[in-house]
Amino acid sequence: MNKKKGTAKTTQKKISRRAAKMGKAPGSVIYMGDREGEKSTVSVLEYNERQLEEHELDVYNPEHFNKIVAFKDTPSISWIDVIGLSDELFIEKLGNSFNLNPLSIEDAVNTHQRPKIDEYENYIFSVFNMLYFDENNELVAEHVAIVLMENTVLVLQELKGDVFNGIRNRINNKTGRIRVKGADYLFFALLDAIIDNYFVILENVNTKIEILEEEVYQHPRPEIAQQIQELKKEVLKIRRWIYPVKELVSRLIDSEHPLISKDTKLFLRDAMDHSTEINETLQVYREMSMSLMEMYISNISNKMNEVMKVLTIMASIFIPLTFIAGVYGMNFDYIPELHLQYGYFYVWGLMILIFVGLLIFFKRKRWL
Amino acid sequence: MNKKKGTAKTTQKKISRRAAKMGKAPGSVIYMGDREGEKSTVSVLEYNERQLEEHELDVYNPEHFNKIVAFKDTPSISWIDVIGLSDELFIEKLGNSFNLNPLSIEDAVNTHQRPKIDEYENYIFSVFNMLYFDENNELVAEHVAIVLMENTVLVLQELKGDVFNGIRNRINNKTGRIRVKGADYLFFALLDAIIDNYFVILENVNTKIEILEEEVYQHPRPEIAQQIQELKKEVLKIRRWIYPVKELVSRLIDSEHPLISKDTKLFLRDAMDHSTEINETLQVYREMSMSLMEMYISNISNKMNEVMKVLTIMASIFIPLTFIAGVYGMNFDYIPELHLQYGYFYVWGLMILIFVGLLIFFKRKRWL
Amino acid sequence: MNKKKGTAKTTQKKISRRAAKMGKAPGSVIYMGDREGEKSTVSVLEYNERQLEEHELDVYNPEHFNKIVAFKDTPSISWIDVIGLSDELFIEKLGNSFNLNPLSIEDAVNTHQRPKIDEYENYIFSVFNMLYFDENNELVAEHVAIVLMENTVLVLQELKGDVFNGIRNRINNKTGRIRVKGADYLFFALLDAIIDNYFVILENVNTKIEILEEEVYQHPRPEIAQQIQELKKEVLKIRRWIYPVKELVSRLIDSEHPLISKDTKLFLRDAMDHSTEINETLQVYREMSMSLMEMYISNISNKMNEVMKVLTIMASIFIPLTFIAGVYGMNFDYIPELHLQYGYFYVWGLMILIFVGLLIFFKRKRWL
Amino acid sequence: MNKKKGTAKTTQKKISRRAAKMGKAPGSVIYMGDREGEKSTVSVLEYNERQLEEHELDVYNPEHFNKIVAFKDTPSISWIDVIGLSDELFIEKLGNSFNLNPLSIEDAVNTHQRPKIDEYENYIFSVFNMLYFDENNELVAEHVAIVLMENTVLVLQELKGDVFNGIRNRINNKTGRIRVKGADYLFFALLDAIIDNYFVILENVNTKIEILEEEVYQHPRPEIAQQIQELKKEVLKIRRWIYPVKELVSRLIDSEHPLISKDTKLFLRDAMDHSTEINETLQVYREMSMSLMEMYISNISNKMNEVMKVLTIMASIFIPLTFIAGVYGMNFDYIPELHLQYGYFYVWGLMILIFVGLLIFFKRKRWL
Amino acid sequence: MNKKKGTAKTTQKKISRRAAKMGKAPGSVIYMGDREGEKSTVSVLEYNERQLEEHELDVYNPEHFNKIVAFKDTPSISWIDVIGLSDELFIEKLGNSFNLNPLSIEDAVNTHQRPKIDEYENYIFSVFNMLYFDENNELVAEHVAIVLMENTVLVLQELKGDVFNGIRNRINNKTGRIRVKGADYLFFALLDAIIDNYFVILENVNTKIEILEEEVYQHPRPEIAQQIQELKKEVLKIRRWIYPVKELVSRLIDSEHPLISKDTKLFLRDAMDHSTEINETLQVYREMSMSLMEMYISNISNKMNEVMKVLTIMASIFIPLTFIAGVYGMNFDYIPELHLQYGYFYVWGLMILIFVGLLIFFKRKRWL
Repeated sequence: MNKKKGTAKTTQKKISRRAAKMGKAPGSVIYMGDREGEKSTVSVLEYNERQLEEHELDVYNPEHFNKIVAFKDTPSISWIDVIGLSDELFIEKLGNSFNLNPLSIEDAVNTHQRPKIDEYENYIFSVFNMLYFDENNELVAEHVAIVLMENTVLVLQELKGDVFNGIRNRINNKTGRIRVKGADYLFFALLDAIIDNYFVILENVNTKIEILEEEVYQHPRPEIAQQIQELKKEVLKIRRWIYPVKELVSRLIDSEHPLISKDTKLFLRDAMDHSTEINETLQVYREMSMSLMEMYISNISNKMNEVMKVLTIMASIFIPLTFIAGVYGMNFDYIPELHLQYGYFYVWGLMILIFVGLLIFFKRKRWL
Repeated sequence: MNKKKGTAKTTQKKISRRAAKMGKAPGSVIYMGDREGEKSTVSVLEYNERQLEEHELDVYNPEHFNKIVAFKDTPSISWIDVIGLSDELFIEKLGNSFNLNPLSIEDAVNTHQRPKIDEYENYIFSVFNMLYFDENNELVAEHVAIVLMENTVLVLQELKGDVFNGIRNRINNKTGRIRVKGADYLFFALLDAIIDNYFVILENVNTKIEILEEEVYQHPRPEIAQQIQELKKEVLKIRRWIYPVKELVSRLIDSEHPLISKDTKLFLRDAMDHSTEINETLQVYREMSMSLMEMYISNISNKMNEVMKVLTIMASIFIPLTFIAGVYGMNFDYIPELHLQYGYFYVWGLMILIFVGLLIFFKRKRWL
Repeated sequence: MNKKKGTAKTTQKKISRRAAKMGKAPGSVIYMGDREGEKSTVSVLEYNERQLEEHELDVYNPEHFNKIVAFKDTPSISWIDVIGLSDELFIEKLGNSFNLNPLSIEDAVNTHQRPKIDEYENYIFSVFNMLYFDENNELVAEHVAIVLMENTVLVLQELKGDVFNGIRNRINNKTGRIRVKGADYLFFALLDAIIDNYFVILENVNTKIEILEEEVYQHPRPEIAQQIQELKKEVLKIRRWIYPVKELVSRLIDSEHPLISKDTKLFLRDAMDHSTEINETLQVYREMSMSLMEMYISNISNKMNEVMKVLTIMASIFIPLTFIAGVYGMNFDYIPELHLQYGYFYVWGLMILIFVGLLIFFKRKRWL
Repeated sequence: MNKKKGTAKTTQKKISRRAAKMGKAPGSVIYMGDREGEKSTVSVLEYNERQLEEHELDVYNPEHFNKIVAFKDTPSISWIDVIGLSDELFIEKLGNSFNLNPLSIEDAVNTHQRPKIDEYENYIFSVFNMLYFDENNELVAEHVAIVLMENTVLVLQELKGDVFNGIRNRINNKTGRIRVKGADYLFFALLDAIIDNYFVILENVNTKIEILEEEVYQHPRPEIAQQIQELKKEVLKIRRWIYPVKELVSRLIDSEHPLISKDTKLFLRDAMDHSTEINETLQVYREMSMSLMEMYISNISNKMNEVMKVLTIMASIFIPLTFIAGVYGMNFDYIPELHLQYGYFYVWGLMILIFVGLLIFFKRKRWL
Repeated sequence: MNKKKGTAKTTQKKISRRAAKMGKAPGSVIYMGDREGEKSTVSVLEYNERQLEEHELDVYNPEHFNKIVAFKDTPSISWIDVIGLSDELFIEKLGNSFNLNPLSIEDAVNTHQRPKIDEYENYIFSVFNMLYFDENNELVAEHVAIVLMENTVLVLQELKGDVFNGIRNRINNKTGRIRVKGADYLFFALLDAIIDNYFVILENVNTKIEILEEEVYQHPRPEIAQQIQELKKEVLKIRRWIYPVKELVSRLIDSEHPLISKDTKLFLRDAMDHSTEINETLQVYREMSMSLMEMYISNISNKMNEVMKVLTIMASIFIPLTFIAGVYGMNFDYIPELHLQYGYFYVWGLMILIFVGLLIFFKRKRWL
């Protein structure tokens, strides 16, 4: 109950935020997420083949702020990681310092933004969703914006997740390709990490389907139907968040933007293959969840059939017998059978005969 | 009842209007809406980076009329807003003064026109639907035509809505991009306001789906099924009105019409993204409303199952007991059990045994 | 019954006609319609900006025949209207005189021909279906072939319908664009009239859907299901006849045939828009008719639910009561309750208690 | 039963033949049909505008064989008709003599080959299915390969069918276009005859649908459901055999192979139109067969409803009456009503009252 | 039960492997299959038109390893067959020696890789699934990677299957085309063998459908529904594995990679035709399995109908009769019929009349 209310409230909030935005000019930087009032933090990882430096920066210190902006002009690769998007003023200032188009800055904090990859002359702007299941096992989409500039990748996200930890480790370890490659490879690596994470989500969905399938066969109950519906909605939601990725990556591969090297496109092709696989899997899950519902309905019918058979057998057997008993309970002056010596036993015989006959009849019909 | 009749009458009127148009030449200016006999009013907003003027004009005053037409040749941006489309003569005269193709003028007053964007040599003509829910919570589509000319945007609508108020404010405030941009940006801003408004409609539909879902789980009744059907029809209707927008905008982006600057195309791309999101959401709503119906049917079956179980349990238990009572109600001369001292109590024992046995049987079958 | 037979016979005839055609060379002029043995009549409307002449011609008078053919070489626009297609010899002769390809002549009399627009070097050949409801309210498709040549439009149809009357009036009235435009505009006007007429058919279908919807909610009966099926088949049929038109017109717009002026393409674009709208509407009707069936089935289930509830309530209440009466109808020598002074009334009390208890139980279950 | 077994056996055979082919090189000439061990026969029709010769040839006579091959170099049109494909050696030798690619020869005897048109430098190879209903009214697909070479058309089929008789007659009659046209026109004529034949199949399916529809409305029985399923499978099968033809012909029209003259392409366009119509019709049949099943299920529910109503009415009326009779069958010492003079008649009155009341109740519910 | 657990465990393992890979750089060579710890073996078949040599090589002997690598530079065709992919180190070393891109090496051991064909400058890398049914009749997909280089084909698979035996035989036999063709033809032959094998899988599915169909008609039981669901999932799985092949081959045909000769493209076109046929067949199977479920549900309804009829007939006949018996079991002082001499027989007469009347009624309704 409480949860439902919570959802309703969140929806309400979303609408009012959306409404607040209506009438505003496009490019207005309005944070749409749920984590209002949180401060932003910035960490920078600067590296090249030989060197590696990590910086934690205080965004409200003007000197630090200038330092952040300065990173974009260093020849080493800079991975600038902004956590916390609710401080609209800071984000706008930062975006302007990086010469981002106002539309890009708007999308960076619009946590409802559909996945997108926009190519601008001097940078590539992208938005993706990182999916995970929260503590209530409900699916949550975390908005992340990644901007690829020359020698610099700017990441804006709401929470510091652990999806990118693997990349951080690879950079630290110095082994591996990533240290000798350009910013576009880092961009790809981030995208690849997000896509890899989708497979975990799919596995989770798959497990749910398997459990529900088991339940549908064993104990079809209305709650199961409700859970199937929830599953269907979950798959629809995941699809909306993930589906566009494939085409976006495909278009990026076909584009001739100078920031993407031919070598990195080879890797992007690999990422696109994974997206294709994810989309196909989602399609399969969609069909399987529809099958589940069908199966559920057919099992409900089966249960009813079973109930009806019990009723029919009981009624068909005992109603005629009761009739016979009723006949010999009549009070006519003259009913010859009543005075036979063994009349009562004859009647029992008749009733047993009918009983057995009907049992055989139902047996033949395979109802027993 | 009354409402139904009303609808029927409206439909009737629509047909007769459509019929009135048949046989007429294409390009005949025939108003198709419901607000016949209303006068048109015109207001003009003229602005450039430094100046801003507002004019209310009397369309039936020839001098004023000439003034309206003159606006299109001023170097500042003119937003000419025509409210009320039923005065076909005025609209036709106005359209001719602006050198619009007769087909465009026809579409401007054809309130049944599907969304369109037509490019002509010296102007771009477009028709969209503004959607809102009226006082009866019924979905209404308001026809709006927007014509982009050099330095001029001509808007023709039936009612002065508040969807464009935000834009008016932005122009008045002087802050913001809009004052320094051309007429094509104004055109985009209007389109963007219309699309933004669609999100409100979608939220409304979403709320309806959530409410119906709750009802389907709690109290599936025939009226709920009817409401689901209404919802499905509503989604179909919204889709027809909104669906074409995405492709229209996409084609506008790809076109090379000189009235659309490269800069504005960046913004149009953003609008197209929103249209795509709206179309995807509508698709999701469509699937969800179909799921609702499925869920409703499965719940009906469940209810019937429950009814059948009660009947089966009651009948299966009491019919055999009644039979036993019937047996000892028979009037045979010789029924030995009747004369046993505790016969009556033995029979009660037997009946209680059968009763308990059947209860256990049904318990095992999980019917209780 | 009779009607059904009629349909069967017609189908039979169609097959045999189709069969008659098999083995024949393509281009064989074989009339496929139902109006065999009727004579053809020809009327010609010749006009230019200043003049207008109407001619009724006797096709079996060689002189007249030559006159018909001569019209195609006059510089004024000639609209040659041939009514009645069953006289294959005449049609073939006429077609040859106009230098039509044998395949075109074949299609002109093949009343089963799917809509088509074929471009030849010196003419454009097209076939459409005019739809209307006959006196039995059954949907009928009337085949019409329109040939656009230089300054001449040749129309071949089975019956003189009134769809083209509006155009005739516009030509007579001298007002309007049509008198100053070329034969391609006349061609467009005819096509536009046909498409406009489709809207009337759609309105008719819409009315049927509304009526059936009402019935499904009020009195779901097997006949309603049958009518829904008929509706579905009707929509499928209409779709087959209308659906190809959009693409045909679209291809005509894209073609560079010299007979179609750039100006007329603007009008054709309008006609294409209408076709698109029609196709979308048909799609909506298709989904709505499928929803109707779903609704019907869910209502049938509801009705059964109601029936079952009545049965369950009656049986569940009276079967236990009858059991109690049966117990005290037993003839045991010793049944102590029978000899209580108010035993009979105690039993009545017990039975009323059970009765009321069960009523409350069913009330709580919301079955009453 | 026997038939089923037969099918199973055939399937078995097909698999083993398929298996036999596995591991073999592509281009291996392996006959896949059911008519093993039959001899091949060859008849040749050689004609030009003035002359016509028919030859029956013994393929196992080397002289004759050389004669067959020689026909391909004569300037007149040669229609070489090979009946019987099970003699793999002969077919391979023939194919090699005609310089066919091994892949073509393989496809010529692979009776499971999907329709195809392959263009080679010096010939066009095509495979189609001729459909007919055999003596058991089961749909059979007859494989036919047609090879278009310069001045020569080579036809390979399993059985001498009568689909091509019309063409033979047209060639014999000397009237008609065919005698003055090239080998490509003959190729088209054969294709056209095959496509024309599809219409007969469709009519047959249509008749089946009409009959089943009647049955579904009148007497829905399990066998009807089974027949609907058979129909669905039949439509699916036909679709697989016919569906690709349209695209193949379309590609042939777009190709620039020198063997196809521009003039013949006009005729091929006509054939493509017919294929389109067939595909659309099949789509309609598919939807109609799905509707039939839906209708069947809804009628089953209706029947059950009717059964339930009878039960409910009978039980609801007589169970309360039996209860009353039971009450006055009790043996209490003191039941005052029993001693009323007209007690028995009062009770009858009460029972008639209840009876009539319930009848009215059911009448009101429209269950009677 | 055990099996289910097994599946769950396998799924678990897959996830953990997938998880192990997350965070790793793309191009990390991580074996994803179930056969960990197995050693790799390599056999090489080297041949040209005249010569043929077979080699079994020990991959852990450095000399042998160098020999393997040397094969790729010999002018004869080398078919290098690697069995066992779990030794990641060896595979990586081998791949590097052959100058394969790290992404290719990764995909070679990623047994979950979706079918792909990637073109690199100096080689073509492809992954396919070989499908077969294991001893439990469960569908298993065996991963196989085929790399086409100049004069060399490198095959990496988990198990030595017998799908390629036919090709080995053809090479050994020296007859046939394969010995005189290049490495690209060998590549095609391997692909063709894999596709041919798909037909066997399809036949197996077809047999399952036929068996289930029979069962659905004869004995619809819940287990049948479950088996239909399993079938549907199987078809979905097969489709995922096979579906992409067609497009991959099609793209290969269109590509201009120098390793694929024009002659081989002719053969690839044949392989593409087969893929198309397989995809169409899968589509048909999908529709048939959905029909099966529909049929199952309709048969369940029929069974219920039959049950209901028995109940209705029994209850409708005996309940009224029991009522009559009840009436004459009442103990009123004055019931005139009781004292008629033949009252008892009259009542029997009445009851028999009612019995026969109801029988006729049900007969008329065709319920008997």
